[in-house]
Amino acid sequence: MIIVMSPSATEENLARVQERVAQAGLRVHLSTGEDRTIVGVIGDKKKIANLEMNMMEGVEKTVRITEKYKLVSRDFQPEGTIVDVGGVKIGGDHIVIMAGPCAVESMEQLREAAKCVKEGGAEFLRGGAFKPRTSPYDFQGLAQKGLEMLRTAADEQGLKVVTEVVDHDDIEIIGKYADVFQVGARNMQNFQLLKALGRERKPVLLKRGLSATISEWLNAAEYILSGGNENVILCERGIRTYETFTRNTLDLSAVAAVKELSHLPVIVDPSHGTGRWQMVRPMARAAVAAGADGLIVEVHPHPEAALSDGDQSLTPKNFNRLMEEISGIAKVMGKTV
Amino acid sequence: MIIVMSPSATEENLARVQERVAQAGLRVHLSTGEDRTIVGVIGDKKKIANLEMNMMEGVEKTVRITEKYKLVSRDFQPEGTIVDVGGVKIGGDHIVIMAGPCAVESMEQLREAAKCVKEGGAEFLRGGAFKPRTSPYDFQGLAQKGLEMLRTAADEQGLKVVTEVVDHDDIEIIGKYADVFQVGARNMQNFQLLKALGRERKPVLLKRGLSATISEWLNAAEYILSGGNENVILCERGIRTYETFTRNTLDLSAVAAVKELSHLPVIVDPSHGTGRWQMVRPMARAAVAAGADGLIVEVHPHPEAALSDGDQSLTPKNFNRLMEEISGIAKVMGKTV
Amino acid sequence: MIIVMSPSATEENLARVQERVAQAGLRVHLSTGEDRTIVGVIGDKKKIANLEMNMMEGVEKTVRITEKYKLVSRDFQPEGTIVDVGGVKIGGDHIVIMAGPCAVESMEQLREAAKCVKEGGAEFLRGGAFKPRTSPYDFQGLAQKGLEMLRTAADEQGLKVVTEVVDHDDIEIIGKYADVFQVGARNMQNFQLLKALGRERKPVLLKRGLSATISEWLNAAEYILSGGNENVILCERGIRTYETFTRNTLDLSAVAAVKELSHLPVIVDPSHGTGRWQMVRPMARAAVAAGADGLIVEVHPHPEAALSDGDQSLTPKNFNRLMEEISGIAKVMGKTV
Amino acid sequence: MIIVMSPSATEENLARVQERVAQAGLRVHLSTGEDRTIVGVIGDKKKIANLEMNMMEGVEKTVRITEKYKLVSRDFQPEGTIVDVGGVKIGGDHIVIMAGPCAVESMEQLREAAKCVKEGGAEFLRGGAFKPRTSPYDFQGLAQKGLEMLRTAADEQGLKVVTEVVDHDDIEIIGKYADVFQVGARNMQNFQLLKALGRERKPVLLKRGLSATISEWLNAAEYILSGGNENVILCERGIRTYETFTRNTLDLSAVAAVKELSHLPVIVDPSHGTGRWQMVRPMARAAVAAGADGLIVEVHPHPEAALSDGDQSLTPKNFNRLMEEISGIAKVMGKTV
Repeated sequence: MIIVMSPSATEENLARVQERVAQAGLRVHLSTGEDRTIVGVIGDKKKIANLEMNMMEGVEKTVRITEKYKLVSRDFQPEGTIVDVGGVKIGGDHIVIMAGPCAVESMEQLREAAKCVKEGGAEFLRGGAFKPRTSPYDFQGLAQKGLEMLRTAADEQGLKVVTEVVDHDDIEIIGKYADVFQVGARNMQNFQLLKALGRERKPVLLKRGLSATISEWLNAAEYILSGGNENVILCERGIRTYETFTRNTLDLSAVAAVKELSHLPVIVDPSHGTGRWQMVRPMARAAVAAGADGLIVEVHPHPEAALSDGDQSLTPKNFNRLMEEISGIAKVMGKTV
Repeated sequence: MIIVMSPSATEENLARVQERVAQAGLRVHLSTGEDRTIVGVIGDKKKIANLEMNMMEGVEKTVRITEKYKLVSRDFQPEGTIVDVGGVKIGGDHIVIMAGPCAVESMEQLREAAKCVKEGGAEFLRGGAFKPRTSPYDFQGLAQKGLEMLRTAADEQGLKVVTEVVDHDDIEIIGKYADVFQVGARNMQNFQLLKALGRERKPVLLKRGLSATISEWLNAAEYILSGGNENVILCERGIRTYETFTRNTLDLSAVAAVKELSHLPVIVDPSHGTGRWQMVRPMARAAVAAGADGLIVEVHPHPEAALSDGDQSLTPKNFNRLMEEISGIAKVMGKTV
Repeated sequence: MIIVMSPSATEENLARVQERVAQAGLRVHLSTGEDRTIVGVIGDKKKIANLEMNMMEGVEKTVRITEKYKLVSRDFQPEGTIVDVGGVKIGGDHIVIMAGPCAVESMEQLREAAKCVKEGGAEFLRGGAFKPRTSPYDFQGLAQKGLEMLRTAADEQGLKVVTEVVDHDDIEIIGKYADVFQVGARNMQNFQLLKALGRERKPVLLKRGLSATISEWLNAAEYILSGGNENVILCERGIRTYETFTRNTLDLSAVAAVKELSHLPVIVDPSHGTGRWQMVRPMARAAVAAGADGLIVEVHPHPEAALSDGDQSLTPKNFNRLMEEISGIAKVMGKTV
Repeated sequence: MIIVMSPSATEENLARVQERVAQAGLRVHLSTGEDRTIVGVIGDKKKIANLEMNMMEGVEKTVRITEKYKLVSRDFQPEGTIVDVGGVKIGGDHIVIMAGPCAVESMEQLREAAKCVKEGGAEFLRGGAFKPRTSPYDFQGLAQKGLEMLRTAADEQGLKVVTEVVDHDDIEIIGKYADVFQVGARNMQNFQLLKALGRERKPVLLKRGLSATISEWLNAAEYILSGGNENVILCERGIRTYETFTRNTLDLSAVAAVKELSHLPVIVDPSHGTGRWQMVRPMARAAVAAGADGLIVEVHPHPEAALSDGDQSLTPKNFNRLMEEISGIAKVMGKTV
């Protein structure tokens, strides 16, 4: 941490700042500039994390130099993590595809969807059984019945299952049916849920919060890793901006940022990220070109009849076109779908 | 809902759109313009809420006319709600003040804080016992021990207690000690928590999410009211924008908006809303002038030694100045502190 | 400037960084931490402003400690500036009111408006003769004819005139009619315009850009002051955020921020800041309570017939109510309208 | 336009709304719902553009159905525009590359840069001679001397020149040296500049504003086309969001959006869009995969010594790697670099 003293700070102000740093078990390094003094604080990261200096007299501002997360950082582990889900690898030179409807609606719908995404080349069936919805009057999901359908449809096609967990009380039941727990954007800072998932060993797909910084997102992942679960896959799904043409603004530079800062694999959700099916294919191609390790895409056999998020779901035909296109891009990237 | 057909939509496209609306049990009203047809959908709000039309051929876009929430709206209840917390009224012509430290740290700290805020004129003691923190390495709160301290310190001064609940599992224990449950910004769309609080009868202070629209915020409140708990107080606490000088951007126009759209009382948190103690007093004055029903403010006997959010805490002396200033503003507004 | 070296930086990397700082005529102060070295750069502000270090090998990031602006800062001039416009003071303990229609439409409209705002207590007539409009097909203003009308209507009522300049070529003609040049949000970083206004001596009302940081805004003002024109009044008018209920998000904390960082007076535009006439009065009250030195408000004798921005214009009756309300707030602030 | 009447609107309110629409020369279509009446307004687009109804009694809100721009829309011209710059085609199945330093600094620097970008496969040399800078104390560009250097260096290598125009007074002189006028993000709504460029015939590269919506961007382009200049190339360069890790958030979904809404070609600036050289290559690949017609990239022979924006400039070596990578992506897209 750097403490910037005000030009009007007195000697006494400075002495008290130094004293307080020392009391916290940290060391000080002074640097005297043209019109102000800079105090460098040196020592243990966790002690610095809890140091509050802005309220002291004579302090103009403080600047944090290092991030608080550690286990998720590439400094800590230079080589990229590959998460293994029963033989399906996420990370490395493989592009993983997770596809299916937004919400599980019926066995018939799911069977059709599973068949179609399998044929297209997906390895995971996605679908929500517990749905977080803005309004209490919106469809809230089929719960356990939906989980059963997911597992059945996936097994029939030899697919893995990824589905959202919205409450730590549901971890046990969802764990029985799913291969990967999904944490949705609204729950990225539901720390109780993150801590509970840190005690599991099944992989977690951690979506970026609606307005989470990359730093907050990696700190959220740190909650899971520091609990003992190293199988975390990050997922960029669009952030909230002033633009209204798209539902969210898909931030593909976050893929490059995560690759620089962390060893964890990162996939992209172009369906929620744009909210418009017309944009899913171009953004899927761009995601793979940016270096993403995979995609999670909404595919619905009859999107115009979907109970939620029909606007952003692909038809089976469009999903097949997407798969062809990203195969080409993956090849250029030295990867395979 | 208004369905805007594309200029290139065919007669058949239009026929199928009309058919689908009819199947959903809704009525259609056609309006033929210069170069496109507009389809008005008439009927039950909940049926319209679940209608998905954007994927149909020939549809350019859809526009929702009415909000999904109902119980929280001023259309539904024109007169403003006054929430009664054991005799302390929130709403109407009274300005309620909730004050205290960000986190409960020790009995001594809390006693000092409670004494000071009581003397200044506050009616509630605030303080976090369960803290949602960005990093797993930050101070996470004293839990039940903190609740006990809060209750003791508040009772000694004749204050009410408001404290945050971060997990529905904690509702019972927190309910034993607190007079008002606080839902923090990060949990505004933790729908399991909202549903559980809807089954309680104790009042809920619902903070606006970091990047929640006013509509999403009111829908979150609707979760609580539709569960049967009508004692909801809204709290504006700053939204996330591109500006970095302040921690958040305090959106005081949200106060005016909520007063127009809803009958629920709304208070303001100028401490989290700005993240800088220097700005708490001007923003507190502005909040009351904008029509807020109260304030929740961080006051710490020794803010430079606080374990969290020291930057935004007032000293007792500054809190007293704040109270004097807002008394004057309240009077102009025809209210009393 | 602080240069943070990467944990993997070599001795040679560090040596080259030091060398480059020295070449720029600046001094270096080293601080060696647990796992990385911090290089403090000391010396002339302008030299530091042009230093680029991020591309050098071994550099993790750089942090700028001081702002680039100087003349506008409160460090440079501790006492607040009072801009005198022919006897009307802006700043100090006076609240100035500028009011009138968004666009000048006709002599009749302007006469009615001028009479009404004068009676309400305004000291300035506002109105656009040159209008920056999103679409080329929107009404673009009456140009010189509008300026003449403004001057005539203002003179009849003994009002000053403030009007927007969108092009440096128009400065001369506008200068003949107006008492204060207004720079609109879209032109806050039209540096040619700012430089040209720096060569004038008439006061400039500088609106904050749609998504300008406070730092960028003050730097824009620095362009004018560094050109020799010290008569700058800042104006907060709402920033662009994700919220769509209001046209912009009025950032009243910017008023407090500017008061802390700069000696320049700052006023608020609650009309553009909210885009809804229902919110103008509450936000006007809040602005004065936050410490603003005045208001610029849209008043139109017949807002439902306005050629632009009718949504946010007050009727004469509502303007009178606003004036009464802010008189009360001003008094609490120790000021007079 | 759709006018939504309030549930409490009276018959008289409705009658006056209908009357006012009729007076504006437009037609009305009524639709009576469960609890409110919807008034559809039919007729001439420009008349509707100037209609203000929100202030009328009984009106709850209005919704605009159609965009104001016309000439830039794909409805107006279904086939994509190809802009021809002296034989170099922008649009169609060609990927155009514009590269060079942020600012022109010296003949030597420019010669090195021009040689390197030509060898890498670029067709345009970019570089700023007139620089819009946040602070008046930052390097402001070499002006005409810079233009001469640009032309000389470009001609020696057989490259076209694109450079920024910040003031309409400079159009003539810049037109003598440049092949394409660049309008920077800060000037996207400098309507005087846009109108002046509409009277030219040389192509214009129109960057998206820092916080411009896609609709505002296309309306800005409409200013140029409606003036008679059809040679407009759009350029996405990142928008302002809350994220601070990158300088801006590159919005690649804007590429897909523009391709859907407009016939104009669109290129991407991954250098300003991210502000970090490490991200330029991944974002360049992603841009081409998203469907962009080209790239404008900062390349500097010695980026660590650059006078502006060194952080985001590529070395010649990294530029060559970028060119190889996007050749592969272009091929998958059925295009050639």
